[in-house]
Amino acid sequence: MLKLYHHPNSTFARRVRIALIEKAIPAELIEVDMVARAHRAPWYLALNPYGRVPTLDEDGFVLYESTAILDYLEATHPTPPLVPADARGRALVAMHMKLCDLQLARQTSTIIFPKRFLPPERWDQELMAQAKREIERHLEVLETQLQGKEYLVGDCYSLAEVCYTPFVEFFPLMEITPPPAVAAWSGRILQRPSAAQTKPPR
Amino acid sequence: MLKLYHHPNSTFARRVRIALIEKAIPAELIEVDMVARAHRAPWYLALNPYGRVPTLDEDGFVLYESTAILDYLEATHPTPPLVPADARGRALVAMHMKLCDLQLARQTSTIIFPKRFLPPERWDQELMAQAKREIERHLEVLETQLQGKEYLVGDCYSLAEVCYTPFVEFFPLMEITPPPAVAAWSGRILQRPSAAQTKPPR
Repeated sequence: MLKLYHHPNSTFARRVRIALIEKAIPAELIEVDMVARAHRAPWYLALNPYGRVPTLDEDGFVLYESTAILDYLEATHPTPPLVPADARGRALVAMHMKLCDLQLARQTSTIIFPKRFLPPERWDQELMAQAKREIERHLEVLETQLQGKEYLVGDCYSLAEVCYTPFVEFFPLMEITPPPAVAAWSGRILQRPSAAQTKPPR
Repeated sequence: MLKLYHHPNSTFARRVRIALIEKAIPAELIEVDMVARAHRAPWYLALNPYGRVPTLDEDGFVLYESTAILDYLEATHPTPPLVPADARGRALVAMHMKLCDLQLARQTSTIIFPKRFLPPERWDQELMAQAKREIERHLEVLETQLQGKEYLVGDCYSLAEVCYTPFVEFFPLMEITPPPAVAAWSGRILQRPSAAQTKPPR
């Protein structure tokens, strides 16, 4: 039985929970009490020395970093597929997964962590504004790439969309109005049952 | 014929050049004149909207982000392999590739870009010291993981080492003395012909 260490407010853990639902993979979800700093406790650091969620444990095989876990679930549970059948399509999915981390995930964390968990007087407004500009530039690129398409790669929902879902969720909180093709795509991926069932409580 | 847009001083492009040599894949190397800001020119931004190197062009199929390119070369040129044969081994390679980016590559850039290209009065000493501390913490984790092993995953040189090579190169410039197992491993991967042939001119 797969065990997934996660937290309901973790964007990166949510990616894995979405994939588990999309692929109907049974797993035991273990919530790491991050408010009580359980992710810094020796037992957790022994599993994941970086003290982050998610961490996967499959009968003692321990794996962390959400994108590596998604690749592993795809390799071990290929049906239904969340990557295209051809090498070029798979490579493009990997490229978009990476760009989501570089151009959206980090910047989103810069904005939403303070907005969700800190009082306004502790916000670093300049850093948050810079992150917002970077996100807006990234969405312009996505807008071009999504022209006339329902999904980023080929005609199918893929691991690229799985990676984007938790971050797209926060456009309203970030006061970002995505351009039209990005807005339609965001709506499409947030409507999936796997997204609805993993929506963070706050 | 593969075309690779690169720059001889680019750490991320070097990863792909190493894999091309390890796999003996013929490719045309096209140097992007980054000093003249060719990476911001319209013709290059049409290939890679983020204006970074490397970018791969295989008969019109365009792919960027070094790790996605490495995965693609592995899928299309599987011999000699740079990943283990089993899904767990492959997943661990993907995990280490990601951690190299998160815990070493970014921090290394923070330190070496100023040291290589800016006069000392323009260095952000505080930011650079923070990056150095993060690298040292990461190397402690690697030290534990490399105990009794020649390579990070299984018994073989893999894409994990390909990703680390360009950053390990800069330990001396960063004035970082790696712990013993990391030092031995670094020496091992820097001695390969693929590393020697791609060593940056400065």
